[in-house]
Amino acid sequence: MVECDVEYEKDNIFAKILRKEIPNFTVYENDNILVMMDIMPMSRGHCLLLPKAPSRNLLDANDEVLGKILPAIKKVAKAVKKAMNADGIIIKQFNEDAAGQTVYHLHFHIIPAYRGEKLARHADRKEDNEILAARAKEIANYIEEID
Amino acid sequence: MVECDVEYEKDNIFAKILRKEIPNFTVYENDNILVMMDIMPMSRGHCLLLPKAPSRNLLDANDEVLGKILPAIKKVAKAVKKAMNADGIIIKQFNEDAAGQTVYHLHFHIIPAYRGEKLARHADRKEDNEILAARAKEIANYIEEID
Repeated sequence: MVECDVEYEKDNIFAKILRKEIPNFTVYENDNILVMMDIMPMSRGHCLLLPKAPSRNLLDANDEVLGKILPAIKKVAKAVKKAMNADGIIIKQFNEDAAGQTVYHLHFHIIPAYRGEKLARHADRKEDNEILAARAKEIANYIEEID
Repeated sequence: MVECDVEYEKDNIFAKILRKEIPNFTVYENDNILVMMDIMPMSRGHCLLLPKAPSRNLLDANDEVLGKILPAIKKVAKAVKKAMNADGIIIKQFNEDAAGQTVYHLHFHIIPAYRGEKLARHADRKEDNEILAARAKEIANYIEEID
């Protein structure tokens, strides 16, 4: 049964990152997921969590894959909050273009919130590579092993 | 180990709803979760999914509880999309006030997106009860059994 209007496009940018054809600023990786810095962050420490299993978005994702994601997001969110000294964490996930999805491989935004600071608009500005690399390392220091 | 700055407050409004002390517009309910209409929707068909297990937010939630949530959100999202004829679905979850959390019982926003329509600001206006009741019923018609 096809759950989406469009099937999985295997040359989307996150598929290429998962195949190591394009570099990324990795925070954490295991057999099931990749956590990396969003290169156009809405706030300091904005990360993305991608399951490695291919799916366009949540609507066509496998339940077994989905079952592991929120416990993983929790660990990443706690690490981001500690490493970045953030006041809160926003989780967002977009399905289809009308909802703001721009890359068609399922991914979750983990966005630190800071009291008194507004979020930047997504994709406003690419962050400097040195800063992204440093933040990836800082957050990685706080991440517990993920199943 | 205390994971949050503040502990679970058992008289938050969602705890009262789960104890049936306050009514709600239920879309789906089982032993583990409640899905209900957001009474101040950001778009037509905006639902909330709450695990029944008490936790302040994602940061102090139990992994076993979390493991069941995304497969459930997927089913609700697909039902909302079909029932409301939406073009996309946005998932949001807020942790702590700096991130926009206003009720301190873990909950997930399932927000339909419609091409060419902007989302309303949350909490701008309470929707009419008749409309909320009708939408809950329409969405319920499309929901598959949730584990």
